[in-house]
Amino acid sequence: MSVTDRRNLPVGIFDSGLGGLTVLKELRRYLPHEQFVYLGDTARTPYGSKSRETIQRYSLECASFLERQGIKLLVVACNTSSSLALDVLIDKLDCPVVGTIEPAVREALAGPAISRVGVIGTKATIQSGAYTELLHARSPGLSISSIACPLFVPLVEEGICSGPIVESVVQMYLSPFRAQPVDSLILGCTHYPLLSAEISAYLGSGTTIIQCSSAIAGSVRKILDDVNLAAEIQRFSHPEERYYVTDDVGRFNELASLFLDGRKVEAVKIESL
Amino acid sequence: MSVTDRRNLPVGIFDSGLGGLTVLKELRRYLPHEQFVYLGDTARTPYGSKSRETIQRYSLECASFLERQGIKLLVVACNTSSSLALDVLIDKLDCPVVGTIEPAVREALAGPAISRVGVIGTKATIQSGAYTELLHARSPGLSISSIACPLFVPLVEEGICSGPIVESVVQMYLSPFRAQPVDSLILGCTHYPLLSAEISAYLGSGTTIIQCSSAIAGSVRKILDDVNLAAEIQRFSHPEERYYVTDDVGRFNELASLFLDGRKVEAVKIESL
Repeated sequence: MSVTDRRNLPVGIFDSGLGGLTVLKELRRYLPHEQFVYLGDTARTPYGSKSRETIQRYSLECASFLERQGIKLLVVACNTSSSLALDVLIDKLDCPVVGTIEPAVREALAGPAISRVGVIGTKATIQSGAYTELLHARSPGLSISSIACPLFVPLVEEGICSGPIVESVVQMYLSPFRAQPVDSLILGCTHYPLLSAEISAYLGSGTTIIQCSSAIAGSVRKILDDVNLAAEIQRFSHPEERYYVTDDVGRFNELASLFLDGRKVEAVKIESL
Repeated sequence: MSVTDRRNLPVGIFDSGLGGLTVLKELRRYLPHEQFVYLGDTARTPYGSKSRETIQRYSLECASFLERQGIKLLVVACNTSSSLALDVLIDKLDCPVVGTIEPAVREALAGPAISRVGVIGTKATIQSGAYTELLHARSPGLSISSIACPLFVPLVEEGICSGPIVESVVQMYLSPFRAQPVDSLILGCTHYPLLSAEISAYLGSGTTIIQCSSAIAGSVRKILDDVNLAAEIQRFSHPEERYYVTDDVGRFNELASLFLDGRKVEAVKIESL
């Protein structure tokens, strides 16, 4: 395939379900000339409570599906997959692969005088130690605390993003960050931005909330420029977006439209990965 | 296979994960001479938020796996599968199949002067209308209200079965049953018995809580007697129990032991169904 042809391939994005759409939204804002193909593994969601081996297998299946569609770069828009399967994906794929961890860490450390960082995510993400490891490597003197918040995803999936139940759950998980405040708190799960108002209200203005999506979009833009794979400007007057899911499309289309500010979504169901 | 050989085959049980162990526990109490083989589809759990088609496919794969192990009867210990896939399973399997719906309905209607029944379950179970349909058929004048409680399973899976968060969530879902009390409330999900103390405390003593597990065990005993397939007494001095899961065994073994009052569980992981 010629370089020009490769430039005009879409960027692939996958997540265990809907959460990765918060990343797609930001990618579209940063890269208005690019085409995107999104895969949500809704028949097997969630990944965050499953084992390393299962997460690696599912992530590879998602990535291989997108590679077969023809993509020029893969965004792993799932923190659990990024924490446990990124090396495997980089090893197996021919195109560049961007995960959530490095961009989020970079953004968390970008502020002035950062001495304490908090990380929250799914059980699998936190147990993997992926964030802690990279934060330590980049900033050895840093104090790092991480907490798994397994009820946050079901709350968001139920559309419960504020109110007394969210307040109680936020308090249950995050009270250590109120007792010992952190400068930056990394939302290490693509569902969590929908709870950021409540999290921020609980922790107060002394803690900067880090959402990885804009940092990821920045990384993707830089890589495409570096390797000369950005889409030709004017090539797509209406860049295409395709959506695939492994379970029924109905509920996905409905919720995806909410995640994407009302844009109409028509996903295609694939039978198996 | 001779009738004697078939009598000494195990009873198969499957669930999307751990919840079905509440049924296994009761089966063991009712049927101390039987052997059991349990399958938890932990790599794809939960089923309750997925589509009919996906639930039917997963349920068939679970049932076929157990059938290949050699079983004399199948217990579908998952209300979601029972609501959406029971007909398909009965159609495909050669052995008798027992689901959760009929036994729970029978038990709910067994009390004197029942005029109002409530049903709670996963989204898929409630949307299927399986409980409502059977309750109507058995007792046409009955008033029936059903409510999906999708946060109950994640709470139980996180081991959060009491305390202020459970109280808030119980109140959020079940306030209609306090405003208009029901005589019986069917817990239409095998995880919910672990929340029954809080549910009962909230609804008060006027509402009888129906857990389907003892009714299921009664049905299984009756069927095995009717078709002359009960295990020969004295055949197994220590009846065998085998456990299979589709994800890692570590967390399953640990939680299963809690569900089964400390009995040691050593599950085997199967790679795919």
